Amino acid sequence: MTHLPHTNAQVILKSRPHGIPQSEHFEVVESALPALDAGQFLVRNAFLSVEPAMRGWVNAAANYSDPVAVGSVMRGFAAGVVVASRHEAYAPGDQVMGMLGWQHYAVSDGSTIRRKVLEPDLPLSLSLGILGINGVTAYFALTELGEPRAGNTVVVSTAAGSVGSAVGQIAKIAGCRTVGITGGAAKQRLCLDEFGYDEAVDYQRADFTQALAKACAGGVDIYYDNTSGPISDAVLPHINKGARIIVCGTAAVPTWEPWPTGPRVERHLLNKAARMQGFLVWDYEHRYEEAIARLATWVREGSVRYREDFLEGIDSAPDAIAGLYRGDNLGKRLIRLSSGVDDGAGISLSKTP
Amino acid sequence: MTHLPHTNAQVILKSRPHGIPQSEHFEVVESALPALDAGQFLVRNAFLSVEPAMRGWVNAAANYSDPVAVGSVMRGFAAGVVVASRHEAYAPGDQVMGMLGWQHYAVSDGSTIRRKVLEPDLPLSLSLGILGINGVTAYFALTELGEPRAGNTVVVSTAAGSVGSAVGQIAKIAGCRTVGITGGAAKQRLCLDEFGYDEAVDYQRADFTQALAKACAGGVDIYYDNTSGPISDAVLPHINKGARIIVCGTAAVPTWEPWPTGPRVERHLLNKAARMQGFLVWDYEHRYEEAIARLATWVREGSVRYREDFLEGIDSAPDAIAGLYRGDNLGKRLIRLSSGVDDGAGISLSKTP
Repeated sequence: MTHLPHTNAQVILKSRPHGIPQSEHFEVVESALPALDAGQFLVRNAFLSVEPAMRGWVNAAANYSDPVAVGSVMRGFAAGVVVASRHEAYAPGDQVMGMLGWQHYAVSDGSTIRRKVLEPDLPLSLSLGILGINGVTAYFALTELGEPRAGNTVVVSTAAGSVGSAVGQIAKIAGCRTVGITGGAAKQRLCLDEFGYDEAVDYQRADFTQALAKACAGGVDIYYDNTSGPISDAVLPHINKGARIIVCGTAAVPTWEPWPTGPRVERHLLNKAARMQGFLVWDYEHRYEEAIARLATWVREGSVRYREDFLEGIDSAPDAIAGLYRGDNLGKRLIRLSSGVDDGAGISLSKTP
Repeated sequence: MTHLPHTNAQVILKSRPHGIPQSEHFEVVESALPALDAGQFLVRNAFLSVEPAMRGWVNAAANYSDPVAVGSVMRGFAAGVVVASRHEAYAPGDQVMGMLGWQHYAVSDGSTIRRKVLEPDLPLSLSLGILGINGVTAYFALTELGEPRAGNTVVVSTAAGSVGSAVGQIAKIAGCRTVGITGGAAKQRLCLDEFGYDEAVDYQRADFTQALAKACAGGVDIYYDNTSGPISDAVLPHINKGARIIVCGTAAVPTWEPWPTGPRVERHLLNKAARMQGFLVWDYEHRYEEAIARLATWVREGSVRYREDFLEGIDSAPDAIAGLYRGDNLGKRLIRLSSGVDDGAGISLSKTP
């Protein structure tokens, strides 16, 4: 039996960044943990997710979600274990994933829960990566917007990343030829050895353009992009008739104030009757379990592999997003708070303060 | 009975332009008209079509068709009447439309014919406009790529043009609200009075951006674009969730060497899960008659209206494209060589030289 804690540790947005959020924009604070109301339950977070999209969540510019308010807990996905519950659908010991925030403990009424984690044979951390938003994004972005067909050439930017690596591997399962674009020799090797790309091109090398042209000699049918910058500009001249370009992120753009310019895309799209389409994973929320079931099968079979990059403890949170944009990580970046196993099992509600 | 001519007048591409072709890039020459081989027939062109796309056809840059060779007859659609035939499927008096070239007479084996004109109650010239590539482009671009739904707001650039005006009117038939963007007060009035736009905005006015924002206060669901320039850049910030942007032309770009830059589109597409897609009418060749049948019905009913702009005689051809880009025309630009009616009927093959 564990006593429920009275205090929480939380990562607060201290000031609003312009561009990529840095350590100084966050602060780790202690706060009191409120008692549970009827219909609420308490989650002890085991893993906090670090996402490129968080840059958008803290910036003030018009975006697909309202910005995180200065002074409030940083919005973020987390996976954890229910440790106390006054909600009939959640019981202590349940593993959950959701928008639980960057904090040790989260009080939820269920509305912030994305799903109960139903793969007890697989690590809980995967529910924030390949079996979470990253995997679901890769799955639907590629299959719904990319419409892969056997023999297609699929180019993936951020190819070694948590979404990109899944896109590349799902494309292989679909019978496509895959070309990964990534930064540095280590990630290039990871693309080839771990994620099964047919070719991997290093955008940091001086001969990037030529290497890309060689790897895409037969043209590009699908381009999955997470960068929205010079890498895309280099890929577009290679697209084939009817190509599908999936816009999933804008990692190469440090700020949208002022709005950046680039080579116009219209002529490429027109000459090739190609399409360029933005992907928001929220549009597929009703189909998450479908994707996760397939991904879990592939993970168990070993046909989809993944890498995780753990930062230890909540004090590593403030620099975690900046580090992601510096490319520090090799694999899905997570902040580990605890192992996520057995936490909270057997906690009795009578102990709630 | 008419004697067949021995000589032809042809518009030759004299030199290769960079950018918009001007008078000096063309020359009108006389040439001998060859005798018909078996399987050939002779068309007397009544109308030559003048298209924005012709700029692409004569430029050397990679494009969706091979460039017209210097010294050869200018590629172009024309509508005319068969005046002599050694081809079993074509008889004197047949009205035809096809890639017959900028010339008085064209010898064809049938491969250059797009269609026989089957609307004897309507002017032959329409087969180069609203019942030709322009109308078919508008029809498929809007219905297939735009996927209009009742209540959608549809914005059309080059709104008074031969394609744009059809897009706007077909969108109205589909129950959409239409906003036309055009240059100058005369075309603005034409949009409102003739083509039934709900709003018309003049991009030449200093208050264009504000007027556009006001006309698009409810957001833009479909944007049909023919410009690929500042007009598009002004429209994109107004797109709604799931918007469809149809790229059909690049009239605002005088040259692609050097490649022009513009505000990056990725963020708009991503935030709104929107798509931007190039349209090539050639991809719908097998469905032309379906579109033309519907368009002809609408024209007869008066629910789709059109404007034609006639230049007289082949000597007007060299400056015709440049004039189009200057915006000289009000309506579909055509070069009239003859009335197209009754020409050649009753010519006997025995008169072939």
